[in-house]
Amino acid sequence: MWFALKNKNQSDCLLANEQKKYTVKQKDEIMKPYAQLTSAELSALKTQLTAELSKYKESGRKLNMTRGVPSDEQLSLCNEMLTCLSADDYKAANGADCRNYGGIDGIPEMKKIFADLLELTPDEVIVGGNSSLSLMFDNVAVNMSHGVREGQPWQSQGQVKFLCPVPGYDRHFTICNYFHIDMIPIAMGQDGPDMDAVEKAVASDPMIKGIWCVPKFSNPTGIVYSEETVKRFAKLKPAADDFRIYWDNAYAFHYLEDKQITIPNIIRLCEEAGNPNMPLVFSSFSKVSFAGASVTCMASSKSNCEYIRKRLTAQTIGPDKLIQLRHARFFKDAAGVMAHMEKHAAILKPKFRLVIDTLRLELGGLGIAEWTEPEGGYFVSFNSLEGCAKRIVSLCAEAGVALTPAGATYPNGNDPKDRNIRIAPTCPPIIELGQALEIFCAAVKLAAVEKLCK
Amino acid sequence: MWFALKNKNQSDCLLANEQKKYTVKQKDEIMKPYAQLTSAELSALKTQLTAELSKYKESGRKLNMTRGVPSDEQLSLCNEMLTCLSADDYKAANGADCRNYGGIDGIPEMKKIFADLLELTPDEVIVGGNSSLSLMFDNVAVNMSHGVREGQPWQSQGQVKFLCPVPGYDRHFTICNYFHIDMIPIAMGQDGPDMDAVEKAVASDPMIKGIWCVPKFSNPTGIVYSEETVKRFAKLKPAADDFRIYWDNAYAFHYLEDKQITIPNIIRLCEEAGNPNMPLVFSSFSKVSFAGASVTCMASSKSNCEYIRKRLTAQTIGPDKLIQLRHARFFKDAAGVMAHMEKHAAILKPKFRLVIDTLRLELGGLGIAEWTEPEGGYFVSFNSLEGCAKRIVSLCAEAGVALTPAGATYPNGNDPKDRNIRIAPTCPPIIELGQALEIFCAAVKLAAVEKLCK
Repeated sequence: MWFALKNKNQSDCLLANEQKKYTVKQKDEIMKPYAQLTSAELSALKTQLTAELSKYKESGRKLNMTRGVPSDEQLSLCNEMLTCLSADDYKAANGADCRNYGGIDGIPEMKKIFADLLELTPDEVIVGGNSSLSLMFDNVAVNMSHGVREGQPWQSQGQVKFLCPVPGYDRHFTICNYFHIDMIPIAMGQDGPDMDAVEKAVASDPMIKGIWCVPKFSNPTGIVYSEETVKRFAKLKPAADDFRIYWDNAYAFHYLEDKQITIPNIIRLCEEAGNPNMPLVFSSFSKVSFAGASVTCMASSKSNCEYIRKRLTAQTIGPDKLIQLRHARFFKDAAGVMAHMEKHAAILKPKFRLVIDTLRLELGGLGIAEWTEPEGGYFVSFNSLEGCAKRIVSLCAEAGVALTPAGATYPNGNDPKDRNIRIAPTCPPIIELGQALEIFCAAVKLAAVEKLCK
Repeated sequence: MWFALKNKNQSDCLLANEQKKYTVKQKDEIMKPYAQLTSAELSALKTQLTAELSKYKESGRKLNMTRGVPSDEQLSLCNEMLTCLSADDYKAANGADCRNYGGIDGIPEMKKIFADLLELTPDEVIVGGNSSLSLMFDNVAVNMSHGVREGQPWQSQGQVKFLCPVPGYDRHFTICNYFHIDMIPIAMGQDGPDMDAVEKAVASDPMIKGIWCVPKFSNPTGIVYSEETVKRFAKLKPAADDFRIYWDNAYAFHYLEDKQITIPNIIRLCEEAGNPNMPLVFSSFSKVSFAGASVTCMASSKSNCEYIRKRLTAQTIGPDKLIQLRHARFFKDAAGVMAHMEKHAAILKPKFRLVIDTLRLELGGLGIAEWTEPEGGYFVSFNSLEGCAKRIVSLCAEAGVALTPAGATYPNGNDPKDRNIRIAPTCPPIIELGQALEIFCAAVKLAAVEKLCK
């Protein structure tokens, strides 16, 4: 598996093309493919790398790259939101007093911002609280216990199954685990999930009730579903009429590069294909404004939204409206959000650049690793030699660098090839990120040498 | 049923004692008990009242007493909370950046405020979002699908039943309806639910899994559970070891009078009685700060809280921390909350006084109505003659006054005697409240006359 995301149409190995730039390495270290090394060379390298990691360990550094968390600098972009309401500014566009009860699915201005960003209408949008994960968990919970659109509960139909493109987002898998839903891995390619496998699976098995998708700047690969992939999703012919696409568009606005990469509108395409109620779209401002105090939304057909609103009235008095009003005042409109995202990109681009440059410089041409080079989102997906990911994470932990557990990107934490690691470069200050990457690369090399020595 | 809440130990009819003050009525209207009226008198009265209500109807007024909603004046007590954070004030007491991810159960200062108010420790408290209804719904959902403390799911044990003290809170009943839980009405007395009935029911039927309680200034009766009642709750011997008390302490701080009425600590009493995990306590600032942007909590044994925290990590990234920080900054501590509640009381007391005075003046001695006279909370519970409540609500609606639907205070909206109406006096300005009550009393009289004419 190899993603050359700098050019989505380029199917050859990006690293193979690019590594030429780095023929002169800074370190006094063997730079030819490790598979070509002699036993003696491997042994010497092992000694050298072990010593290097010991040195890091002794330094007592504590560096964290576990989760996709915005940095202090990013959060501070929105500090004005803390103060943007005055003591007499609490009314929404429809006159509703945001301090009081009322309204189950969001104030008009926040619904419009989400609708404009997602190219939908406000009545296709339900604004939630600060956690889109809750919206997804909740939707699965309801479908399990009460059925899709009040149909037969999933749980009463037999063993429920979800398709899980891998590597994927661990918290999606946790929801499945919580509800005892079987997870069927689907390979991710450059253009999205293996659609042949998806089409075949959903057409043949009525107990496949859902699929988790992060269609844009996917977690963790950073890939963007191609137009063809999205069209094939819209045209799925599931054996289950209560099959749902969980379209977690968490990084919809999270570009690193200037150019705006778009994906087709899944809701419109599904409408056209006669599957209007199949997609459930989720979006979030957790990585737009404040991760700890944002707004989220769920979007779907008007008809689905009516069912959801009805249920919400049993479940809640409605989401916090003042935080929505703060967002509306601060961002003003969808264009305001997109302009704000450029500020995030300016902070994140050097961090992602540092990751890619370091990986190329340290690991390029060694034949022991591959990684993605995303143009948006929050992660770089990294593959080591098979059977090395757990060892790398363990070596890093010893040397003071906390990484997402190896396997986390696979259902039940089980990466069958033990090779995928999610690199989350957004939170650490750039100096610390550089230090962490140095340690990471040394650990990757040592794990590879250990494997080749066996 | 009659509650004389001005003095909880006084078992006789308060109205009977107090009505003497109002022997001279302002209106030129028959003031003796309606049961003693002749047919001719009833007929004349019917004509007079019908004309009166027609006059109201023609005035085109629109008055709303449907829900327990704080007034603009009450909400404005907290307007400083809109602005109480500055652009560099976002860190919690434990150093956590409230703008960012992290923390599943509340910031330390908010946990402490709730713990102090409820006389618990912070590790017995889980702070939630802005809707305590969500916390309750969620807890029932989990127990249905996954069992109490990961035991056997309720739904797999048979037909689940809840005890429902009546009249009670409609949204509790809605949760039961949503999960197809059978509701068993339990009569409310002056000291709380009929504990003989509660003890007998839970001891004999293992499918009784819960009871809804609003122990202080109950919704809608305003009664306060006696010490004896709370002690009997703690000592329950349920046939089901996964029976839970849903202790919705929604009005814990919502006094109208100066003196502070307390109830025993259900969590401590249950500990002492060997039932440490039986109570689930819910509390909310919805009617303390902003109903549309508050904080809520759930409290239970440390052990229960550990189970809940574990589940929450599958379900959410955690509650909004900035709104918690705003609350902590604004109220400072539990004493600050209690001082703030006195301001609410100053606004609410005249409204409740107006309700009670009007009911006494207009309906006292007629033998057609009874009502509660609460010392806290948000409601007055009103009983008409049997079979008249729906008619009264309908007459009021025609005359421009919206009331909570008759029957709403009973499971499935079914008040078997069709006599209970919940009066919610908090939201309307006092002038409008007076107008609404005038119309209400005319409707009560007309419905009674209509019944007696039959």
